[in-house]
Amino acid sequence: MWRLKCEVAYDGTEFSGWQIQPNGRTVQGVIEAALQNMHKGRQVRVSASGRTDAGVHARGQIFHFDSELNIPEEGWLKALNALLPGDTVIQKVQKVDSAFHARFDVVKKEYRYRVLYTRDIDIFRQRYTHHIPYELNQAGMAEAAEVLVGEHDFSSFCAANTDVKNKIRTLENLNIIHKGDEIVFRLVGNGFLYQMVRIIVGTLIEVGRGKRPAKDVSRILAEKDRTQAGPTAPGKGLVLWKVTYDSRD
Amino acid sequence: MWRLKCEVAYDGTEFSGWQIQPNGRTVQGVIEAALQNMHKGRQVRVSASGRTDAGVHARGQIFHFDSELNIPEEGWLKALNALLPGDTVIQKVQKVDSAFHARFDVVKKEYRYRVLYTRDIDIFRQRYTHHIPYELNQAGMAEAAEVLVGEHDFSSFCAANTDVKNKIRTLENLNIIHKGDEIVFRLVGNGFLYQMVRIIVGTLIEVGRGKRPAKDVSRILAEKDRTQAGPTAPGKGLVLWKVTYDSRD
Repeated sequence: MWRLKCEVAYDGTEFSGWQIQPNGRTVQGVIEAALQNMHKGRQVRVSASGRTDAGVHARGQIFHFDSELNIPEEGWLKALNALLPGDTVIQKVQKVDSAFHARFDVVKKEYRYRVLYTRDIDIFRQRYTHHIPYELNQAGMAEAAEVLVGEHDFSSFCAANTDVKNKIRTLENLNIIHKGDEIVFRLVGNGFLYQMVRIIVGTLIEVGRGKRPAKDVSRILAEKDRTQAGPTAPGKGLVLWKVTYDSRD
Repeated sequence: MWRLKCEVAYDGTEFSGWQIQPNGRTVQGVIEAALQNMHKGRQVRVSASGRTDAGVHARGQIFHFDSELNIPEEGWLKALNALLPGDTVIQKVQKVDSAFHARFDVVKKEYRYRVLYTRDIDIFRQRYTHHIPYELNQAGMAEAAEVLVGEHDFSSFCAANTDVKNKIRTLENLNIIHKGDEIVFRLVGNGFLYQMVRIIVGTLIEVGRGKRPAKDVSRILAEKDRTQAGPTAPGKGLVLWKVTYDSRD
């Protein structure tokens, strides 16, 4: 028996998210279908570093699974990609120790959120960016972002429908990068609550548009109440960029 | 009666091309459906600057139509976009002289062809780029491109199934631009034959890969035989970038 660790990129547009469900096309669903095909119809379960929501993309999602098939890493890569649809691409396969777990062993994660900051929409980027045709006060957003960095109880930045009890997380970095006509929010942390990135981005955009002052963010954190933060930014702007397992990575 | 000139951008991925057909989703089809909706079920025909093939995109395709509806330009823009699907966006509507014709009045056209020049595919650009994971000799491609610029009989660079008799066209510019990890072919000319851009790009890529020498292009032109040129590059890399009607544009 081998444990395989895989890196997968997907365009989330046509998926109802990562997690398999009875109705709706999911990333886990297409991957498990490909594996089932390779295992003579037997079901093979995969475990990811975490779920992604409908419309959310991944550049470096990680999952693992176990198999008795004796195939070299490069062989797995080719076989899986031959069976997967075009919007799901396995980028790397590694044989790992059977103790490795894609979810429990995560050391940190990086997400990026792309905002297209132009007057008109760009039809070639609309699947991957959130379009904001308004002025954004970038100094204000940077000031608010700084408050969020560090260890905090992020209850106000977590969707209400979650089972997680401990909502303390450490946000290592929150950079706001101006890149041509886009603004990219780059968040790195040891863990993210349900919809945390999108609520943070939605709140920072409200600060950028002058709907709330930058210093409001301290109060929102302190309230520990989801209704105090801004709206959840649309899934399509979000990319799970990188998952790190080893501090040496 | 008013004649309306419209600029439309579309993501060609989910279309069987511009031209309406009984089976298959087409750009002309979705636009005429929106217009029919606005005209109480009456059919309104639109005329474009030219067709685009399945998978080919447009940033600035132009079409015109006539209507008795008295709506300001901004009103047309909003109404049409409200009725059109997300992959088709009207960017501009102008009332023009009834003598204007989107096809016959074209002065020049610009196409761009994007090649993603990396080892691995990029899932977020695969709809809009042709991926080439091989070395490309750029000096060779530039040398071959220079031969094509000017007035020539482009019979060798025209798909065989065409009715057009006169195959002399003037290619004003053919630039090969290195842009980050992409190579962009930019072609400007007074007219393009069926699949001419894609056959030119397909041939230049063969030169870039060393499959044929740069000087082979003169011979191909002289032969006036489609079978002498390279393959037709995939439609997804191509964008109809701009259509010019007035030399002052």
